[in-house]
Amino acid sequence: MTDPTIRRRIYLAGPEVFLPDPLAAGRRKQALCAAHGFEGVFPLDAALDLAGLEKPEAARRISLANEALMRSCDLLIANLTPFRGVSADAGTAFEVGFMRGLGRPVLGYTNTPLDLRRRSETARAGPALPFDCDSATVAIEDFDLAENLMIEMAVMEAGGSVVRSTIPPGAEMTDLTGFEACLAQAQSIMSRG
Amino acid sequence: MTDPTIRRRIYLAGPEVFLPDPLAAGRRKQALCAAHGFEGVFPLDAALDLAGLEKPEAARRISLANEALMRSCDLLIANLTPFRGVSADAGTAFEVGFMRGLGRPVLGYTNTPLDLRRRSETARAGPALPFDCDSATVAIEDFDLAENLMIEMAVMEAGGSVVRSTIPPGAEMTDLTGFEACLAQAQSIMSRG
Repeated sequence: MTDPTIRRRIYLAGPEVFLPDPLAAGRRKQALCAAHGFEGVFPLDAALDLAGLEKPEAARRISLANEALMRSCDLLIANLTPFRGVSADAGTAFEVGFMRGLGRPVLGYTNTPLDLRRRSETARAGPALPFDCDSATVAIEDFDLAENLMIEMAVMEAGGSVVRSTIPPGAEMTDLTGFEACLAQAQSIMSRG
Repeated sequence: MTDPTIRRRIYLAGPEVFLPDPLAAGRRKQALCAAHGFEGVFPLDAALDLAGLEKPEAARRISLANEALMRSCDLLIANLTPFRGVSADAGTAFEVGFMRGLGRPVLGYTNTPLDLRRRSETARAGPALPFDCDSATVAIEDFDLAENLMIEMAVMEAGGSVVRSTIPPGAEMTDLTGFEACLAQAQSIMSRG
């Protein structure tokens, strides 16, 4: 029997780490986690002292700290909202894969109602970024999914589904409606196992 | 002592699966793997029969087949060339994380010489995609890296480095100069341990 006083730990993946006040964004998610009986773990929780370090060493410590935080968690909820392109932040996608590789449940939400195919078509219709290797003959995934199938199927296999929300313009990065829906999924998954 | 007749298996991650002839792209990489003493494993090697399946079930089978292929491999080499945005293909980023989560070496190359900061600045200077949650106050990673630090540091921790190449326009998706450099890194890593 599980000790009900031990709260399951959720790694909070997403581009919020790049917001002007990332710790405030983390605290908002952590408060919602607590309200749902979980402990939210934000990437910046490691509270590293990076002062005076060269960039590669600072990057290395952040990476290893985040990997250690993921290993300490029972599941992950990712903000998969498109970030600087048609898909989720690359670091977030990596982290979803990392937790899936560890065999732990991954959940996710995206603050756009558009599926990956629609978004890819929209991007292709606009001006191309000079470094982007996409071109007109390259296939666009068409599985009615919100994200690349490796990511979305990892969520499905965990017993969840990627939550899509239509969000007022300007709040795509901060709206937590989808995050709360993921917490409800997390409760359901954890009560089973 | 390692049996020299058993070739180490390399999972070939990248957006080449979306090319008009993905199997040909896979075979080119597999030939180079063989020339370096490795067995190249391409995501489409599972040769699934998806005829008649609904999209979600087809996506599920592809995902599970690719995860099984990754589990069968000793290391991974990723094509991290920016795809439909400033960063690597989201499925590729997921797969790098997955192999890292399994504790296996990950290597990667990108067919642009521009670092992530420069690419992010270029993208921000152009028209915004309507679904993209980036905005002017969101920080841009500045670690002199080719990719998000979680990805690039995973490569560094494996004993490799992300290979950046300047490629003739139009060949960004298919040039294998960086891939061959990764194979040399793989030989060095595998000879150590």
